[in-house]
Amino acid sequence: MEQNIKLTLQYEGTRYNGWQKQGNTADTIQGKLEAVLERMCGRPVEVHGSGRTDAGVHAAGQVANVHLPAGWTPEEVKDYLNRYLPDDIAVLRAELAADKFHSRLSAVKKCYKYRIETSGKRDVFSRRLVYELGRPLDIEAMRKAAGLLTGTHDFKSFCGNRKMKKSSVRTIYSIQVQQGPEDGLVTLTFEGNGFLQNMVRILTGTLIQAGIGERNWQSMNGILEAKDRQAAGPMAPAEGLCLEWVSYDEREE
Amino acid sequence: MEQNIKLTLQYEGTRYNGWQKQGNTADTIQGKLEAVLERMCGRPVEVHGSGRTDAGVHAAGQVANVHLPAGWTPEEVKDYLNRYLPDDIAVLRAELAADKFHSRLSAVKKCYKYRIETSGKRDVFSRRLVYELGRPLDIEAMRKAAGLLTGTHDFKSFCGNRKMKKSSVRTIYSIQVQQGPEDGLVTLTFEGNGFLQNMVRILTGTLIQAGIGERNWQSMNGILEAKDRQAAGPMAPAEGLCLEWVSYDEREE
Repeated sequence: MEQNIKLTLQYEGTRYNGWQKQGNTADTIQGKLEAVLERMCGRPVEVHGSGRTDAGVHAAGQVANVHLPAGWTPEEVKDYLNRYLPDDIAVLRAELAADKFHSRLSAVKKCYKYRIETSGKRDVFSRRLVYELGRPLDIEAMRKAAGLLTGTHDFKSFCGNRKMKKSSVRTIYSIQVQQGPEDGLVTLTFEGNGFLQNMVRILTGTLIQAGIGERNWQSMNGILEAKDRQAAGPMAPAEGLCLEWVSYDEREE
Repeated sequence: MEQNIKLTLQYEGTRYNGWQKQGNTADTIQGKLEAVLERMCGRPVEVHGSGRTDAGVHAAGQVANVHLPAGWTPEEVKDYLNRYLPDDIAVLRAELAADKFHSRLSAVKKCYKYRIETSGKRDVFSRRLVYELGRPLDIEAMRKAAGLLTGTHDFKSFCGNRKMKKSSVRTIYSIQVQQGPEDGLVTLTFEGNGFLQNMVRILTGTLIQAGIGERNWQSMNGILEAKDRQAAGPMAPAEGLCLEWVSYDEREE
């Protein structure tokens, strides 16, 4: 008898080579989770994430699922993981899910935040979670550019995987550009039905170009039309990015 | 010609053996600052802190002063330090101070915060700055106990240095016990004219005992009267403590 457990996870990605297990390397979030669960179950297990976060990217609410032997309650799974995981990975919730629930395939909406410090002031307490740009941003220009990127588009120009064969059409429901709560902090909040490889970081790098006047906000339409990675801006650094939450159709859970 | 520069500093104390330089060890905040300033000036310099923070304790607004050769503007000193200091120490401000200004001797008021997580929930993003107690606290009992500790008292029972010869009389202007902003977080804010070695951590450990019912809030008077370290509670862990600010009489600056 097996059960499907849904995990909600937090991690500080700073010292990891991203979510996805790569060969035998132990420095990935997926690898750490699987190692602890293998110890718990006495056999290898596979943890399915809602998506791969890049090296250095954080998560406040990543979702994963794993099929485990019945007999462990979700609360016991959570406690076991929190006891043996390193202190930069935490399980916030463990819940019983429907057999057909899959953290990636069942996901309907995701939210990412990208945090930028514009003041040039260093902050030792948030340094791992914020990109220190150190120059002012034109928030209105960024909001106008963000408006053109919102909606259903082919985001091929914003995809880091140039050999991608599958559809690169995605829907962005909203991109908010907000100042605060601290002076100098600018937060970009992206909500969409899914994001391509490196997409949020390339969108951010392009919006920063609009914010520092290196690019007109009107140019976003042309970038989308080009369907060419060269047309978009650079990829913003990993440390500013955090996967905030993933949501599911309740019938699927 | 020399000038007296006042520095306002931030540091994450996690990987340091406290503020104070100890022999040749390079793992102290004072040692890091002096090493960079020696490189800048081409001769050894001594940095005077407003007080010694313990190993693992943080600062959001520590103040120090240093006599430097004239010719370096305060802004240049700040930029040089921020360029060569490790990323867990930052200079927020550098200002010209009166010759007689001394960060410790001129200080009139200090504020410390101690952060406690009561929910048992782990938070990977704040883990270096919060003590994970993991059990509920009786806030009202802690407030009543804090009220008895406020004022001018001989705090010998709350001093970590048992061989201390000088006066252990200090004035605590206020101790606030607040819940939030996040669920489960309890913050103690101490303002006083000065604090003895380990004093804030021993006050916190004793207030936690009142909060978990191990000690009556009324017992604070007896602890003060005992003038004996054994009478007070244990020292709370370093990671929850942060020196928030130090204030000075404007005529002294």
